[in-house]
Amino acid sequence: MRAAVLGTGLIGGSVLLRLHAAGLDVTGWDPDDATRRQARLAGVPTAERLADAVAGRDVVFLGGPLPTLPATLVKVAAATAPDCLLTDVGSTKAELAAFAAARGLTHRFVPGHPMAGTDRAGLGAARPELFAGAAWVLCPAPDGLVAFRRLAALVTEVIGARVVPMAADRHDAVAALSSHVPHLLAGALAGAAQRSPLRDAVLTLAAGSFRDGTRVAGTPAPRTANMLRGNRDQVLAALAEVTAYLDELAHALRAGDGDTLTARYAEAGAARVALAGRPYQRTVRPFPVDGEAADEVAWLTGLGASGGHLSGCQVTGEAVFYTARLPQAG
Amino acid sequence: MRAAVLGTGLIGGSVLLRLHAAGLDVTGWDPDDATRRQARLAGVPTAERLADAVAGRDVVFLGGPLPTLPATLVKVAAATAPDCLLTDVGSTKAELAAFAAARGLTHRFVPGHPMAGTDRAGLGAARPELFAGAAWVLCPAPDGLVAFRRLAALVTEVIGARVVPMAADRHDAVAALSSHVPHLLAGALAGAAQRSPLRDAVLTLAAGSFRDGTRVAGTPAPRTANMLRGNRDQVLAALAEVTAYLDELAHALRAGDGDTLTARYAEAGAARVALAGRPYQRTVRPFPVDGEAADEVAWLTGLGASGGHLSGCQVTGEAVFYTARLPQAG
Repeated sequence: MRAAVLGTGLIGGSVLLRLHAAGLDVTGWDPDDATRRQARLAGVPTAERLADAVAGRDVVFLGGPLPTLPATLVKVAAATAPDCLLTDVGSTKAELAAFAAARGLTHRFVPGHPMAGTDRAGLGAARPELFAGAAWVLCPAPDGLVAFRRLAALVTEVIGARVVPMAADRHDAVAALSSHVPHLLAGALAGAAQRSPLRDAVLTLAAGSFRDGTRVAGTPAPRTANMLRGNRDQVLAALAEVTAYLDELAHALRAGDGDTLTARYAEAGAARVALAGRPYQRTVRPFPVDGEAADEVAWLTGLGASGGHLSGCQVTGEAVFYTARLPQAG
Repeated sequence: MRAAVLGTGLIGGSVLLRLHAAGLDVTGWDPDDATRRQARLAGVPTAERLADAVAGRDVVFLGGPLPTLPATLVKVAAATAPDCLLTDVGSTKAELAAFAAARGLTHRFVPGHPMAGTDRAGLGAARPELFAGAAWVLCPAPDGLVAFRRLAALVTEVIGARVVPMAADRHDAVAALSSHVPHLLAGALAGAAQRSPLRDAVLTLAAGSFRDGTRVAGTPAPRTANMLRGNRDQVLAALAEVTAYLDELAHALRAGDGDTLTARYAEAGAARVALAGRPYQRTVRPFPVDGEAADEVAWLTGLGASGGHLSGCQVTGEAVFYTARLPQAG
């Protein structure tokens, strides 16, 4: 399998480093001269032009800033063979999925989102093991299952991530609560501290709660702004849910109502308990290779919605075998 | 110096373990039978009754739940010699400081707050090195400087914490922003996720921003409720500053205004840069032992307000020498 990665910052760069370390024939490309030079100095194959990077490739990962992805997709689709698998690593999915569908690319473009990162940016922060064990959303479409299966195998087996199959709009609603609103809260906390006349003392007394709660406010500001704008409506809806809970807490505090405060914190704490360790059950689910696509998509997206993920995908003769981890009830 | 620690959960227990490890003559006490047994099994001297723990001691640390501290202070003051130094490790300071002043205890009670913790509770989570390098607020009073100096020496030299001198009400305003509001945001985020129909998928996709942003929502709910109630007005005021910033972010997002979003995140990011590393300048500041108390208190609280701290305190003959770290301008 010959691969290319376009946009080799933190995320794309980590994909590039991983595929290269795994021994795949992979080439990177980035619009930034210095990034290309840096990749070459690190011994990673890098093309000077996008067209050279993608020529003759079997799979292309599209990285780079979110607003640039539609144009890159069109360009790469035109420069590659009709069966070349395309995917992206952008942080929102519905817009790009709709864009690809409108251009008839659903059979070979699989929207993707690796859920890992750091508060640093650029190829210098990239690491080949960034995605080991991390969740990696892939959006299966009924007419794109062949592409989905190939990519799921690559992402689980070569990159070592957990593939979470999810419909594009469901992904965006989930990501709003699991990633985008946390960025808003972190920005608000850090911003209010920065503006406060007590700033210097606040930073001196900053214990774990402040450090943890503001960490992602240190990520590059344009990247955060793009991420939020790319998922605006879902982010605002999720923010309303969070501020409703915040209002309940503030209301109980204002009233001096310790019982309600304690009850709300016990409810919130249950999410932390579930996050720390949910038991999974391993299962292998076969589907006929040429079976009813809607059934396979429904099973896959149901798996993601229930909190499960794929740890493998093998096509053997007439059947595809998904190895899945399903969270046990409780 | 003979010490006692009352209330040996996470914080008090860590003080007890540290003082014991440092070779001090220290005795612990906790109202909970199992905790006393656990301490004794760990080889740490523990009294069966509070009165036995504090009898003949030179310094007593008051721990335990925040609402219990005033009653404990009264009891311990009556059971100890008039020059026995008293301090507490509660998370808010103004109420207890006023209570102590009203009972004429300012000359020997120094309100304190070690700014460290974990999301676990109890003596089992206590560690002797919990406060190494951590900020530890002490509130100096003009008629309590002798007590303040003794305690500052003990906390810097034996416990290894950074002593941040601060007026009690200033501490509470600062702690509201650096610790209490982060607990509210974490509770709101975790609580909204717990209630969401998307909960299972949210937990599966939870990357660093969600994990970090909800961590302190896993702390014991009654402890968080007590902490917030003990600083209600300051917490609500700080929360208003944070939600004002959050409204600015949400407004820019709703308007699709990427420039404003980026500018607000750049402003917020400056707090993270300052948090990561401010250069300090070491200075040694002498005061006459019997000099003008107001001058010494003003210098001490000014040090804390500017983001500085004490790393040592020595009384030699006629003078007290404070070793301080002052953040450099910028």
